[in-house]
Amino acid sequence: MTKNKIESKAYLFPMPLAVIGANVNGKPNFETVAYVGIVESKPPLISVASYETHYTNIGIKENGTFSVNTPSEDIIEKTDYCGLVSGKEVDKSEVFDVFYGELETAPMISQSPLNLECKVIKVLNLKDLVGVEKAHDIFIGKIEGAYADEEYLTESIPDITKLKPFIYSRGKYWKVGEELAEAWEIGKALEK
Amino acid sequence: MTKNKIESKAYLFPMPLAVIGANVNGKPNFETVAYVGIVESKPPLISVASYETHYTNIGIKENGTFSVNTPSEDIIEKTDYCGLVSGKEVDKSEVFDVFYGELETAPMISQSPLNLECKVIKVLNLKDLVGVEKAHDIFIGKIEGAYADEEYLTESIPDITKLKPFIYSRGKYWKVGEELAEAWEIGKALEK
Repeated sequence: MTKNKIESKAYLFPMPLAVIGANVNGKPNFETVAYVGIVESKPPLISVASYETHYTNIGIKENGTFSVNTPSEDIIEKTDYCGLVSGKEVDKSEVFDVFYGELETAPMISQSPLNLECKVIKVLNLKDLVGVEKAHDIFIGKIEGAYADEEYLTESIPDITKLKPFIYSRGKYWKVGEELAEAWEIGKALEK
Repeated sequence: MTKNKIESKAYLFPMPLAVIGANVNGKPNFETVAYVGIVESKPPLISVASYETHYTNIGIKENGTFSVNTPSEDIIEKTDYCGLVSGKEVDKSEVFDVFYGELETAPMISQSPLNLECKVIKVLNLKDLVGVEKAHDIFIGKIEGAYADEEYLTESIPDITKLKPFIYSRGKYWKVGEELAEAWEIGKALEK
């Protein structure tokens, strides 16, 4: 194999996709992002990066809360739509049915199979550190509540085969495929 | 649909998987993690969370560099193995063939179809903020170099159908499935 140096870009495979909810100017707004990741398990913390000029950021900063909604194949059109248009120009408050949890200000999507309501514990913006004029706000949220419909659970835990989430890559959405192997198991063959 | 409140856990679908490389005590070490995410595009920044007691963290802090290697189905056993055993107990320096890039201290995996070498620009540990004794170190790295074999590229860009990365969920690894739709396109049907 010969390694080629390719353009240094933000490559991650597979890339998750989430619809971020926040109340902005008194109305629910939703933004679809791929820059989302888990950063801690106990307590559960999730990181969401959204460009600093985005409409959603206003609400997250104002309320100190946001939601992370897992899109399923069933709501792929609406998910894509929320990544296409800005809340500055279009009212996205009625794209989905909305419910609230204990945080009260993080709008969650009824049609999404899994919803997390999060309280912001840290906001980072690394623009000064990397020398750019504008950058993403990185919101680290503590997952204060998780909600799911019964039909997406197996033994009370969200089941990827029932959720039917999808992957973002290179301008396309992809399905989750079949099971490959048991984790923390298949590698045991290499233990000496 | 009736929403159930379920246990608040670090749920993300789909969850990526990466093998993190760092030189520790003069030898390459590799750790498999799912707590990885993109946080910025220009410049490309990636976040990797690794529990503060892990062996890999020593090397990342010492050198200020790490690598992010995309596992493909071809190296699933070795990927799983690097998540099973600690570098404190097992020498993982010969699990893979290793190469270095311009940063010189971030060991990359030849058998992995895509490699990113990263320079640490920020280290966070939120244990005080969330009131736990120990937590994950969150390393934010600037992607200084990206490497791939020609066979995994389409028009010089890594191609998910060629890379064959896999997803982690609930103790299992899953394939990436078929294409679902065009992103920033399918949602246009909802534009008024």
